[in-house]
Amino acid sequence: MHTFRVELGARSYPIYIGPGLLGQPDVVAPHVGGRQVMIVTNTTVAPLYLTQTKAAFAAYDTHVVILPDGEQYKTLGTLQQIFDQLVDKRYERDCTLVALGGGVIGDLTGFAAACYQRGVPFIQIPTTLLAQVDSSVGGKTGVNHPHAKNMIGAFHQPRCVLAATDTLDSLDDRQLSAGIAEIIKYGLIRDTEFLIWLEANMEKLLARDSGALSFAIERSCHNKAQVVAADETESGLRATLNLGHTFGHAIEAASGYGAWLHGEAVATGMLMAADLSARLGWLSTAEVHRIESLLVLARLPTRAPAQMDYPTFMKYMSMDKKIQAGRLRLVLLKQLGEAVVTADYEAALLKACIDEHHALSNA
Amino acid sequence: MHTFRVELGARSYPIYIGPGLLGQPDVVAPHVGGRQVMIVTNTTVAPLYLTQTKAAFAAYDTHVVILPDGEQYKTLGTLQQIFDQLVDKRYERDCTLVALGGGVIGDLTGFAAACYQRGVPFIQIPTTLLAQVDSSVGGKTGVNHPHAKNMIGAFHQPRCVLAATDTLDSLDDRQLSAGIAEIIKYGLIRDTEFLIWLEANMEKLLARDSGALSFAIERSCHNKAQVVAADETESGLRATLNLGHTFGHAIEAASGYGAWLHGEAVATGMLMAADLSARLGWLSTAEVHRIESLLVLARLPTRAPAQMDYPTFMKYMSMDKKIQAGRLRLVLLKQLGEAVVTADYEAALLKACIDEHHALSNA
Repeated sequence: MHTFRVELGARSYPIYIGPGLLGQPDVVAPHVGGRQVMIVTNTTVAPLYLTQTKAAFAAYDTHVVILPDGEQYKTLGTLQQIFDQLVDKRYERDCTLVALGGGVIGDLTGFAAACYQRGVPFIQIPTTLLAQVDSSVGGKTGVNHPHAKNMIGAFHQPRCVLAATDTLDSLDDRQLSAGIAEIIKYGLIRDTEFLIWLEANMEKLLARDSGALSFAIERSCHNKAQVVAADETESGLRATLNLGHTFGHAIEAASGYGAWLHGEAVATGMLMAADLSARLGWLSTAEVHRIESLLVLARLPTRAPAQMDYPTFMKYMSMDKKIQAGRLRLVLLKQLGEAVVTADYEAALLKACIDEHHALSNA
Repeated sequence: MHTFRVELGARSYPIYIGPGLLGQPDVVAPHVGGRQVMIVTNTTVAPLYLTQTKAAFAAYDTHVVILPDGEQYKTLGTLQQIFDQLVDKRYERDCTLVALGGGVIGDLTGFAAACYQRGVPFIQIPTTLLAQVDSSVGGKTGVNHPHAKNMIGAFHQPRCVLAATDTLDSLDDRQLSAGIAEIIKYGLIRDTEFLIWLEANMEKLLARDSGALSFAIERSCHNKAQVVAADETESGLRATLNLGHTFGHAIEAASGYGAWLHGEAVATGMLMAADLSARLGWLSTAEVHRIESLLVLARLPTRAPAQMDYPTFMKYMSMDKKIQAGRLRLVLLKQLGEAVVTADYEAALLKACIDEHHALSNA
């Protein structure tokens, strides 16, 4: 088991990474405050890991909420179901919520913990690669609005994160690749050494080599933790973690949440961001192709849905949280390993980028 | 105009108190970040003060949300309506929400501001005495759960509070008295000098004497601000502000939200807390009568609904947020001007207190 701390002053917390972490009372005990625990999970994860997880919390008064599986349930309505259980079971202010599942469960449970009685502790047990390397680290929680993703939420840090790598054995290949998209992101925005490692080790990751996965998870968490520690509430640097996300969110929203996996949409979005960066003269065409090759190697999609033309992208991108004073800020690459957040680009270049992408999608 | 600051480090903010504050662009301008403003108000307040308030924000891109009036609308469902407007009108992360109304509007709007895009600025313009002396100061925001009041929320401080005393001219007498209940509370828990002033000046307050009201509002805000500054997230001292609230919330919940005004329920609850304090030997019977006389002078109810017996009180009080490890903590009076939060009382004394109150309510 590897451990490292996300340094956020009074809100610092450890991330535990490794196999065999589920079902260990000693790992979670230091992070549970009171005597009441509520485990929130979904219909896919519960049959796989709920029994083990409950064993870790056997010493507490524990109830379980099992939600339907899918991004389309990341809503205020589902949140209300968690609150109903908490209130009806008389959960008190010193209770602990446990998120057992992927990013949707983590975001929902974390937001419920942020709001219940104006804030109770929670523990993240991410069971997807995407959640282990991204959403479980950093304290962003929330739900989607029907017209815009992650529009409603809070910053609320977990008491600890358990990245139990053996839970990845049950992930389907598409989910695995979606997680790898966010791993590649860290290489692109701030860690070229890791990018080179990924190019050399992608086959091992896809084969679920335990050592390779542990290394990639730890390196990703480390990258994310450094960025979050420097900018907890996203006033600047943290926004670079959203490389590919503005394009990606538009793809997810336009396709209906759930049709594309988040990581898949981000992969395509990162390629579009790289293309725009090249149009600004910051990347070479060869570098854009290098990024595309890595994404293809990771079995990720690199083309948006064929119907997504420039007006469609702009309609959905204009809902993005990174809008400021009406200008759409995008995360772009100054070079490989260096991201910037900027609204300082010609609108015509963005249009040309999307138009060409649209043409390729329809080729 | 009087101004004073609530000192909360980076989240410090000013409270402006006085007549003629509405409609003054210069007062609000320093506290508006971007170019988009959304004013949230209700069907009662809008016809009275919306035009003036809009004038103060004429320089911004401003929309208005008008909600139905009443505690029964302080729900996640109403919150969703605010989010719908924010998303549909494409409000950005640097927008400002303005709460124009009583405590319900302030709590709803503040919570919407806390959650929209994980937090945007907001301004409080309380138009009831209760909101001016209590809910608009301190950053508590939230909504009710159908089975428990204020169960879902966040701590989110406003950028400023405008206590425009002329808005009190339109308050009905019942609302005025309900606000005075919270004013009396400050005297009871920490300010005996103010308590004596209130006994001497209650008729002036009820007659809406402008000078008396301004003094009482400022003194109340000052008391609350001191407590909040010492304990922003209610780990200890701040809980003393809830004198009478545990009994009061039970009365509100059992009667159906909206039947009793919050301040009315708190008044009756404070008398019950004083009675229990006397049973613990902390107050004299004469002091309990003195408190009752002041509440009666303020035209406040001092008896719970006749049907509220011991089991009914316990059922609703056991939902209180101040439960810890199964023990109901209550705010009680060690003496006039000194409140404590304690679970260290005999259950039999609480039962005797409620039983006697129930008998009096049915006398």
